[in-house]
Amino acid sequence: MKDEYNKLEVYIEKSMAYRQALALFEWDAQTIAPDIAMENTAKTIGILSNEYFKNMVNDEVKQLIYHLSDPKNQEELDFNQKAIVKYLKKDFDRLEPIPAEEYQAYSELSAKAMGVWVKAKNNRCFSDFEATLEEIVGYQKKFAGYRAKEGQKLYDVHLSDYEEGFDMEKLDLFFEQVKAAIIPLVKQVKEKNNLIDKSFNSLEYDIAKQKEFCDFIAEYVGFDKKKGVIAESEHPFTMEMHNKDVRITNHFQKNNLESGIFSIIHESGHAIYEMDIDDAITQTPVGCGTSMGMHESQSRFYENIIGRSEAFWVPVYSKLVETFPQQLEEISLKDFVKSLNKSEPGLIRTEADELTYSLHVMIRYEIEKMIFAGELAISDLPKVWNEKYQEYLGLTPANDDEGVLQDMHWAAGNFGYFPSYALGSAISAQIYYFMLEKMPFEKYLSEGNLSPIQEFLRQNIHKYGATKITGDILFEMMNEGLNAEYFIRYLTEKYTKLYNL
Amino acid sequence: MKDEYNKLEVYIEKSMAYRQALALFEWDAQTIAPDIAMENTAKTIGILSNEYFKNMVNDEVKQLIYHLSDPKNQEELDFNQKAIVKYLKKDFDRLEPIPAEEYQAYSELSAKAMGVWVKAKNNRCFSDFEATLEEIVGYQKKFAGYRAKEGQKLYDVHLSDYEEGFDMEKLDLFFEQVKAAIIPLVKQVKEKNNLIDKSFNSLEYDIAKQKEFCDFIAEYVGFDKKKGVIAESEHPFTMEMHNKDVRITNHFQKNNLESGIFSIIHESGHAIYEMDIDDAITQTPVGCGTSMGMHESQSRFYENIIGRSEAFWVPVYSKLVETFPQQLEEISLKDFVKSLNKSEPGLIRTEADELTYSLHVMIRYEIEKMIFAGELAISDLPKVWNEKYQEYLGLTPANDDEGVLQDMHWAAGNFGYFPSYALGSAISAQIYYFMLEKMPFEKYLSEGNLSPIQEFLRQNIHKYGATKITGDILFEMMNEGLNAEYFIRYLTEKYTKLYNL
Repeated sequence: MKDEYNKLEVYIEKSMAYRQALALFEWDAQTIAPDIAMENTAKTIGILSNEYFKNMVNDEVKQLIYHLSDPKNQEELDFNQKAIVKYLKKDFDRLEPIPAEEYQAYSELSAKAMGVWVKAKNNRCFSDFEATLEEIVGYQKKFAGYRAKEGQKLYDVHLSDYEEGFDMEKLDLFFEQVKAAIIPLVKQVKEKNNLIDKSFNSLEYDIAKQKEFCDFIAEYVGFDKKKGVIAESEHPFTMEMHNKDVRITNHFQKNNLESGIFSIIHESGHAIYEMDIDDAITQTPVGCGTSMGMHESQSRFYENIIGRSEAFWVPVYSKLVETFPQQLEEISLKDFVKSLNKSEPGLIRTEADELTYSLHVMIRYEIEKMIFAGELAISDLPKVWNEKYQEYLGLTPANDDEGVLQDMHWAAGNFGYFPSYALGSAISAQIYYFMLEKMPFEKYLSEGNLSPIQEFLRQNIHKYGATKITGDILFEMMNEGLNAEYFIRYLTEKYTKLYNL
Repeated sequence: MKDEYNKLEVYIEKSMAYRQALALFEWDAQTIAPDIAMENTAKTIGILSNEYFKNMVNDEVKQLIYHLSDPKNQEELDFNQKAIVKYLKKDFDRLEPIPAEEYQAYSELSAKAMGVWVKAKNNRCFSDFEATLEEIVGYQKKFAGYRAKEGQKLYDVHLSDYEEGFDMEKLDLFFEQVKAAIIPLVKQVKEKNNLIDKSFNSLEYDIAKQKEFCDFIAEYVGFDKKKGVIAESEHPFTMEMHNKDVRITNHFQKNNLESGIFSIIHESGHAIYEMDIDDAITQTPVGCGTSMGMHESQSRFYENIIGRSEAFWVPVYSKLVETFPQQLEEISLKDFVKSLNKSEPGLIRTEADELTYSLHVMIRYEIEKMIFAGELAISDLPKVWNEKYQEYLGLTPANDDEGVLQDMHWAAGNFGYFPSYALGSAISAQIYYFMLEKMPFEKYLSEGNLSPIQEFLRQNIHKYGATKITGDILFEMMNEGLNAEYFIRYLTEKYTKLYNL
């Protein structure tokens, strides 16, 4: 068995090398590559993706994976090796049905798509992106079709990629539960909207100074610059090479202080997860966060539970005031923290408050369901998008850049990803209540001592990478699986207190 | 034949994809990768290098290359395809004798070596780098040994890698010729050293402003930012992905204005060469500069022939004065240009003036000859280095960082590269005299119109990439091969006039 595993390991190491190369190309394209480079680089990315595909999807690998997946043949494998085999089996079953040429053609398309999306967004013009998105959706439907089990719906194939065990049935329930609690809260809050003034947030904030403060706050929350890089891109993201090279980006707006700060705390949460993964599994298929939902739980834990709490700002607010004295010297710590938690329906998902955020996710979830059910033509996307925003949030985008073009996810082909954001919020709230019982959480924050919090997350979640699935990690930690009630309790308590409801 | 070529092309495209990936990893490591990333990334680089190697060095490729190298089988091949086959044949004969495991081990070593060198340089301590260099030299000797034809000396194998047709016999002659002319010139200039004052160059120059001016000057000389990126690194370098993505770096010193400006002009010269290569051959093995000597001729043409001329500064000097009014407002254009050409023996090659530069190259050439002849232990390198600097330039480094550790070349395993710098200078002077007959060179410069100069270089040199060898390009352009006399004439005329000798 050991021999068989060693044979498989050669393929694994090669595939991890291709993956790191492809990750580096993506990082590069989104941060510094010249404008027209992709005209040629797309070919390179296509070839490497194809090699990656062929390396893992072939008869010898299939045989090795299937052989090693059999419990009888796992005696000599250790815990990590078993997890790797399981992970590969899933990955193999996901890739194998897709013809290599189609996979390569799609890879070339998606390398170019990001540039098309950025341009269309800059031009505020969905129709510049429509044909490309049509192609992407075409491939994604086709691929999901190849992979779907009998009777399985196309969109469910995508959903289970991001969160094992989730499908439309479960998510419809989850969202209904959340919606039932949120809608009345949103209404009550709307009536008391004047209670919180955050107009100072849209004064002018020098971008170089924002950048300096954001770099500081990233390190403050635990982003280790010896193992990481911070750059800028159109849309903030995290990209891991391995546990000693994790990269995040930020995006600054002159008239929105909160945006840059909370983007960098969010991405730092993702990055800390990846940096904390065990040396023994980095550069293996399980050397990364276990699911998108779990990943988002960590980024949102840092962004919302930690970053929007008063205790967090106690040791660092004065530094922010020093950086922007003109804009902030008359704003008290309490008023600043209130402003961070103000709830107000808006058009941009990434700028949304915790309370309305899930509504943004629901809109995307409903649209994706329609696309994959064949109930929505791509050309109608902006219309449906705008209608839903009017219905859920009472607002209509003036342009596509603040509407249907705002997210990079569809350009990257990430359909089924958005629900993970809402699951992540729910998980983070659940972990929060658990941690309150285990440690003096608030005290740590107000003393500027975040390391026990990170250490707790590392020991209970991060270090395992993807050797365990989300549900198991949660259950082993808390003796309970995902439960939406904690999220509802969290939002209710928070906004009742904030707005004296 | 066409079928055979098509088969070969699949391998070629794959190998170009690996090469671009490896180039990107190198760029990344030298510009932004986190400190300790290479501890894991080295493994990835090793695997990709090995795949690159295996892809091109195997029986099928060998058969295809040998078959297509036969003139009988070339009827259906076009000019570029023939050039590619010839290039691959040379490359194949270079790689094939090296066992794959050794190649991979060496690739992993050299991925780490750069970091070791940077640290040792920062610590000013050669012994921190000694063991790594010892290993690199060990591999390089072994590889040269595998490749040497009967009776061929190890160092000659390296020399011919960088410049086809050159060996120690020819270079000894070339350097003697140049030396015979330079040594008396250096002496004469030394006596009149006080004639030129460049003390203003070591005043304090704000680095952010230097960067801004250098970015401007790069575009001014022809670096196209739509197809390129400028970043910072320990040692300036150029890295091409393809003709639509060419990257250069700069390195700034607070107390040396000239250093940053002429580094960026130098690297822009390299970059313009790569950007000008024909679309038809980019992303093929001949889609790059034809030799190191030719490459250096272009960088030095931009740096010295263009950048250090008075005419070049006529339209842009005022901008530099505006950037640094305190330091420069009392320095006239004429005195500024004189300062750029001042000759003074120094310790740092990259900071050397045109006259003493070749002496720096000769020292490295002589040391490399000794290393490969087994006449010099690596541990004795600092001692011999310092002795030679005393002998040739009358100076002794105070620390290794301004001595034997100053260049990245040995860390990168680039033995045999240094002579190309001197050949490059000689070629650039020869091209200069030819261009003087063909166009109003000085008029173009003083009008700020550099495009006819670039166009001439594009049409006569750049566009061909490596489809023709250096000697042929020079001969087809000027009806004469490399001739050191032009370089000697150039230095003699220039310094006689500058110092009223």
